[in-house]
Amino acid sequence: MNLIKTLTASAALIALPGMALAQEASPDIMPYIFTTLLFLMAGFLVFFMAAGFAMLEAGLVRGKNVTMQLTKNVALFSVASIMYWLIGFNLMYPAEWTVDLWIGQIFSLTQLEPVGLAAADASLDYASVGSDFFFQLMFVAATASIVSGTLAERIKLWPFLIFVAVLTGVFYPISSSWQWGGGWLSEAGFSDFAGSTVVHSVGGWAALAGAMVLGPRIGKYKDGRTVPMPGSNLALATLGTFILWMGWFGFNGGSQLAMGTVGDVTDVSRIFANTNMAAAAGAVTALILTQLMYKKPDLTMILNGALAGLVSITAEPLAPTLGLSLLTGAVGGVIVVFTVPMLDKFKIDDVVGAIPVHLIAGIWGTLAVAFYTGDWGAQITGIVAIGAFTFVASLILWYVLKIVMGIRVSEEDEITGLDMSELGMEAYPEFSKG
Amino acid sequence: MNLIKTLTASAALIALPGMALAQEASPDIMPYIFTTLLFLMAGFLVFFMAAGFAMLEAGLVRGKNVTMQLTKNVALFSVASIMYWLIGFNLMYPAEWTVDLWIGQIFSLTQLEPVGLAAADASLDYASVGSDFFFQLMFVAATASIVSGTLAERIKLWPFLIFVAVLTGVFYPISSSWQWGGGWLSEAGFSDFAGSTVVHSVGGWAALAGAMVLGPRIGKYKDGRTVPMPGSNLALATLGTFILWMGWFGFNGGSQLAMGTVGDVTDVSRIFANTNMAAAAGAVTALILTQLMYKKPDLTMILNGALAGLVSITAEPLAPTLGLSLLTGAVGGVIVVFTVPMLDKFKIDDVVGAIPVHLIAGIWGTLAVAFYTGDWGAQITGIVAIGAFTFVASLILWYVLKIVMGIRVSEEDEITGLDMSELGMEAYPEFSKG
Amino acid sequence: MNLIKTLTASAALIALPGMALAQEASPDIMPYIFTTLLFLMAGFLVFFMAAGFAMLEAGLVRGKNVTMQLTKNVALFSVASIMYWLIGFNLMYPAEWTVDLWIGQIFSLTQLEPVGLAAADASLDYASVGSDFFFQLMFVAATASIVSGTLAERIKLWPFLIFVAVLTGVFYPISSSWQWGGGWLSEAGFSDFAGSTVVHSVGGWAALAGAMVLGPRIGKYKDGRTVPMPGSNLALATLGTFILWMGWFGFNGGSQLAMGTVGDVTDVSRIFANTNMAAAAGAVTALILTQLMYKKPDLTMILNGALAGLVSITAEPLAPTLGLSLLTGAVGGVIVVFTVPMLDKFKIDDVVGAIPVHLIAGIWGTLAVAFYTGDWGAQITGIVAIGAFTFVASLILWYVLKIVMGIRVSEEDEITGLDMSELGMEAYPEFSKG
Repeated sequence: MNLIKTLTASAALIALPGMALAQEASPDIMPYIFTTLLFLMAGFLVFFMAAGFAMLEAGLVRGKNVTMQLTKNVALFSVASIMYWLIGFNLMYPAEWTVDLWIGQIFSLTQLEPVGLAAADASLDYASVGSDFFFQLMFVAATASIVSGTLAERIKLWPFLIFVAVLTGVFYPISSSWQWGGGWLSEAGFSDFAGSTVVHSVGGWAALAGAMVLGPRIGKYKDGRTVPMPGSNLALATLGTFILWMGWFGFNGGSQLAMGTVGDVTDVSRIFANTNMAAAAGAVTALILTQLMYKKPDLTMILNGALAGLVSITAEPLAPTLGLSLLTGAVGGVIVVFTVPMLDKFKIDDVVGAIPVHLIAGIWGTLAVAFYTGDWGAQITGIVAIGAFTFVASLILWYVLKIVMGIRVSEEDEITGLDMSELGMEAYPEFSKG
Repeated sequence: MNLIKTLTASAALIALPGMALAQEASPDIMPYIFTTLLFLMAGFLVFFMAAGFAMLEAGLVRGKNVTMQLTKNVALFSVASIMYWLIGFNLMYPAEWTVDLWIGQIFSLTQLEPVGLAAADASLDYASVGSDFFFQLMFVAATASIVSGTLAERIKLWPFLIFVAVLTGVFYPISSSWQWGGGWLSEAGFSDFAGSTVVHSVGGWAALAGAMVLGPRIGKYKDGRTVPMPGSNLALATLGTFILWMGWFGFNGGSQLAMGTVGDVTDVSRIFANTNMAAAAGAVTALILTQLMYKKPDLTMILNGALAGLVSITAEPLAPTLGLSLLTGAVGGVIVVFTVPMLDKFKIDDVVGAIPVHLIAGIWGTLAVAFYTGDWGAQITGIVAIGAFTFVASLILWYVLKIVMGIRVSEEDEITGLDMSELGMEAYPEFSKG
Repeated sequence: MNLIKTLTASAALIALPGMALAQEASPDIMPYIFTTLLFLMAGFLVFFMAAGFAMLEAGLVRGKNVTMQLTKNVALFSVASIMYWLIGFNLMYPAEWTVDLWIGQIFSLTQLEPVGLAAADASLDYASVGSDFFFQLMFVAATASIVSGTLAERIKLWPFLIFVAVLTGVFYPISSSWQWGGGWLSEAGFSDFAGSTVVHSVGGWAALAGAMVLGPRIGKYKDGRTVPMPGSNLALATLGTFILWMGWFGFNGGSQLAMGTVGDVTDVSRIFANTNMAAAAGAVTALILTQLMYKKPDLTMILNGALAGLVSITAEPLAPTLGLSLLTGAVGGVIVVFTVPMLDKFKIDDVVGAIPVHLIAGIWGTLAVAFYTGDWGAQITGIVAIGAFTFVASLILWYVLKIVMGIRVSEEDEITGLDMSELGMEAYPEFSKG
């Protein structure tokens, strides 16, 4: 507040370039403020995606499992927040990217800048560490949210949360560091702007491993048929989708990582417009396809179509034109409509359709980047390396949890519903069941 | 990132005014960045209004039509996004406003700026085209959302979406170009800051034309009485109203179209405060009036009162004092309480009350601008011109759709509810009907 | 728009320091724009907390009282908006803080800056009055929202709204002026960054006074036992909590009251990260404690744990490290788990747990500031002074309202539920009661 803000002082600033105080009001600090603001704004938008996932999943599970799904979503976000501070952030962004550094950094707490940071001590060519941590933390939480949807209605709370702790504290930071921490994948030319692979596919692989170890819900696959288990509240599922859609502007827009120049803020605008287009295209594609294939539009497919469009554009939301963004998102919509039934063929029970949306559309989006970069090899390398690491690590962890403490509720509890059996609390105690 | 950011460089900037690189860090680009940021921020707020409309409408329809209402809302937003890119944006903002230009521009796709735009190539006195497109797109989607509420519970999905495509791709851009595209209405002195007429009344006129062609719901008007058909979920309706209220800060605030000077950002603040006041006044007025008239406050009237307050202030959210904003919004509340039953007299069945809220309060708000400008003629011209064009064009399109493909579901399907008959999917499958 | 934005003009600015027009593009106005933007952004986030409270409370009351709870929440926000404009803002921020000034200012309407404010007339070392008013208004509304939760399911609408009018127009502004208006508490060294005491405890004290005068719900305490009355919709309650959590970034972050320097924007980042950590810690603590104590995690405790973590960090979200924020929030979680049953011991019926969350965690958070300032006396003085004033004034007002008009619905109406008896409108008319 004690800045020199008068014009006279500003003129003085030219005369005395070394004066730290005067520098506060100089244009040199503007990019720092704008980019920090971008992280904060994008960060709260991505934060809200936690509410989006919670509503989407609470809406798509049956009424007897809603309280549990809500509990898992609040708890996973909280656990991710703590683990990413405790281990994840410094593991993902080592000061210098070497294997040696990891050991010392595994237990390295995130440190924010001191209060009232002086401009002279700031990374004026980037942004506040605090804002970056806040923004990155929301990404790791989103990764964990993907897992909870797939495994809903049968997994026990505590082993799920232990998995989340390791995923957000260790697995995700390691594979992300390969790309976003300046590691070998980024050096190999792999390109994943906002995380179709680094975030969404990672969540999808962890979910797939979990679904395989956990098995399908009782009664889901019977006599070779897939038994529909409709979600209990499509209004909530739609609300969740809209919240996720909004959050994605922060997810992709914030990944520009800069807003202090004409070029950067214009790029962020481009990203917002492209992101919206891909979502719209995914939704319309699923609408048309379900009309054509089933004669009836399917709202849950349309919602997942929008989300798949969003995941598809996430690997490269900047380079495409609006028209190419539409195509990219539309393919996401096609993926959802065709792969949701395919998973059921393999008896992989994905309650909310998170694997088609986040894993398969994530692979598509990441591959599609090669249309711009030309480097198919690098894209495939990234997809395979991060996928293999996450899938194998997750598979091992799920098996260990299964053996050590069991990951699945009893058959009786599952039939009763997790809300009454595990928590003793119904989400809608007064609405009698049909 | 390769900006010259040291103070020395900044001093150099004074010495070498032609250096493009140095210009990046100069104060000259600040207004561009701020205004672009305003469009992005306001844009995601107005985007969220799509969720607001969806929740409001899903809450105010009966349980048997909720999935359909949600489907329409997701689909209409997606269709609007595509049509506005395909035709609408360039039709609304022709490079130069002449009738000649239209023909060539009807199929003109929206083009964003290139990636990494140089400051020298930017409209430094305005903002990024991408951010403007993003912001304007949200307005057109809001217009379409208004229509879906009125026509709920009986209109078929596909003709509705075809109407939306034409409304958002053609009708809305044409009438908006008269005012916001620098056309004849703006030259005639018509004033509509954020769109009481350009957006809200247009949605209202399109809805009114639709309601007249479509007719009321079965059983709504019986033996000269209006049969109440209460909404299935007032919690969702309230949530939707709060979301719309929040989005309106972006709707009106963003319409300042600039944030890079003291005057502009202070005006945006004024707009935020006035917008809030009008909403509050509309809600309190409806609360008091329904208490006085019916002895019981009516929540749906209060919600619509807040929305009518918001629509009323939208034509001029900047000029009034807080006190005058209160009066403007309060009249909106009065309008809702008195015109909702009036529409029923004419057997115009408006499921959510969108016509009183958006059309009638929109006319009021637009007229009220003349208290500040003094030009009643220009205001009436704008209201009549845009109203007549939209109403007649909509009426024709609804009739064509009615003849060509039919716009109303069968009597049996309407009684069953659109969710089961048209989509085969209930929104709340487990909550048995009372 | 007619700014001189070319580099030549910027050079001219140095030459002619008195030119007001040129000053518009100078770096001197940047802090003003950034801080105003902070207030607007934080303001709409805190606005959204009104929706958060509405959803939380609507989810935690029984189905027969949902419409009333929604009505109260929309109405209280609207009443607060009007009262704070009418009296509150100028009472809270007198031009100069003297007792004399109060009398003249009690009926002093809030005045915004003129349209198109010139930089020369602006408080360049702060922000737009309009943005500040908008931001502060949201705080007073939050205070009133706290009261509605505690007193749910039995208080009449109109006396409740009269209480809200006095609380937001008079009580809150008086006690807040002691601290944030530059009054005696701030001079005494009391420290309350974003309002653990000034906002949250004030809401809590007003709620406690109300709960004591109003008495518990019929059947809540029977034969020495506390009868559980489970909330009707935990999905809404969870949504409300997530919305509040998001809004809190604005609540605490905006309370930095500046964003135009490296130090300020970095501090805002720190606050965002710390606020999130405290919420996460509160949630995880309540999760673990309810698991240990009751063998079953309790979702409503987890939600309130997160909120208590947020309230706890609100008095000092800047100074702590992330680790200390975690500890501060965790204590909030402990408080919730232990004091919710304690209140029941005293037969104080707090429907949503607002007293533990906002009052008790608010006291804890305010006390904890002394770990940083060392001044325990000042913290205790503030807690006691504001608490005593608010509690006594509220108690008197509740008694007056009780005597003059009655504050509680009839026994029959309470058993029927307020929705049908007071409003004649059910929130979920089609979902039959179990």
